[in-house]
Amino acid sequence: AERAPRRRLSVDERREQLIAVALELFSAHPPDEVSIDDIAAAAGASRPLVYHYFPGKQALYEESLRRAGQELAGRFEEPADGPLSERLYRVMGRYLEYVESHAAGFTALLRGGSVVSGPGADAVIDQVRRAAGEQILLHLAVPDPSPALRRTVRAWIANAEISSLDWLGERAVPREELQLQLVQELVVSLAVTAAREPALAAHLAEYWAAETPEGPTGRLLHDFTALLAT
Amino acid sequence: AERAPRRRLSVDERREQLIAVALELFSAHPPDEVSIDDIAAAAGASRPLVYHYFPGKQALYEESLRRAGQELAGRFEEPADGPLSERLYRVMGRYLEYVESHAAGFTALLRGGSVVSGPGADAVIDQVRRAAGEQILLHLAVPDPSPALRRTVRAWIANAEISSLDWLGERAVPREELQLQLVQELVVSLAVTAAREPALAAHLAEYWAAETPEGPTGRLLHDFTALLAT
Repeated sequence: AERAPRRRLSVDERREQLIAVALELFSAHPPDEVSIDDIAAAAGASRPLVYHYFPGKQALYEESLRRAGQELAGRFEEPADGPLSERLYRVMGRYLEYVESHAAGFTALLRGGSVVSGPGADAVIDQVRRAAGEQILLHLAVPDPSPALRRTVRAWIANAEISSLDWLGERAVPREELQLQLVQELVVSLAVTAAREPALAAHLAEYWAAETPEGPTGRLLHDFTALLAT
Repeated sequence: AERAPRRRLSVDERREQLIAVALELFSAHPPDEVSIDDIAAAAGASRPLVYHYFPGKQALYEESLRRAGQELAGRFEEPADGPLSERLYRVMGRYLEYVESHAAGFTALLRGGSVVSGPGADAVIDQVRRAAGEQILLHLAVPDPSPALRRTVRAWIANAEISSLDWLGERAVPREELQLQLVQELVVSLAVTAAREPALAAHLAEYWAAETPEGPTGRLLHDFTALLAT
């Protein structure tokens, strides 16, 4: 897929174009299957030109990964309006949409084992995890999150990663189903933690008061009630 | 810590002794901080003798990891008697005990990034995860586990790993508290899945009928009831 640029690009434009092209290729293929020649061809550039901008594939991979991480972290941002579980549901929709459109790259990144995976890639993964955790705690707005609450949030983020990987591999359920289930899993995990932290319980009670019957929490309560009646 | 063997060991005994000594060292220190010389000294053996049995540190590390994996997988086995959440509580007690007594090695293994981590180590981690998942599904005894149920189990195993790592780093709560909370998190995750799978719900209802008020599920229901009343 060659794309010849219509006019001579500036240094910054060329650099950005190479990163964009690399990100696209690394999203659609495992990194070991993408070569500098592939990137050059897709950018309508020569191999020496790519090397003029980047020392090698590793550097281009890490830079495109950083961009993907920034994009993903941006998708976690959500106005602090409306029921908490509906906010999270919207965020998870954007997250899963991104994951789906970058499936091969996301899978290769999290499965690891590629020659270009390493400290640079791990740093990006950690940064995205941290951004996700910070956004959740920001929305919870708990004054002083306990270690148990922080653990619950981190563990749920791991759940979301593993579940996305699994889902990309199998596509056994529609995206919306996974989206809803992940949100409900955070809701119940928070409830388990709140069951032993009165301050958190009081805090969450305010949020629950704002939940609607049609939202993820409302639907879960409805389903649980039906479940307990069986 | 030198330990001179009292008598000449047979070939098999010596091999086993080296593995046991290596496992002990790799449990207490990150692999990069353990040398063949350390292992030889702790085994009361010479460096050439260690190399006579193992080609190098990598091989000794992987073999001791395999042993640790077998030991851990053995701890997942639990008779299919009594309330389900109490069985899991006992298993998690044995798991966390093992993790605690091999803290440095467990942390280094799961954090990765060591020179001796690699496909061999990953294979052991995968095997232990699979063993854990199989045991849970065995106890659930669901005739034909759905992809969503399998995902729930896998995601909870990831939760248990991340939470153990976190706990080893911070020790913010007593072991029994994490043990109980992890069990309760699986119970609620199964309930979230059962809420959309009537066959699973009917199946779990039988298990829940056997739960006691003092068990992890009973205590969770009690706490949830109190929580909803606030």
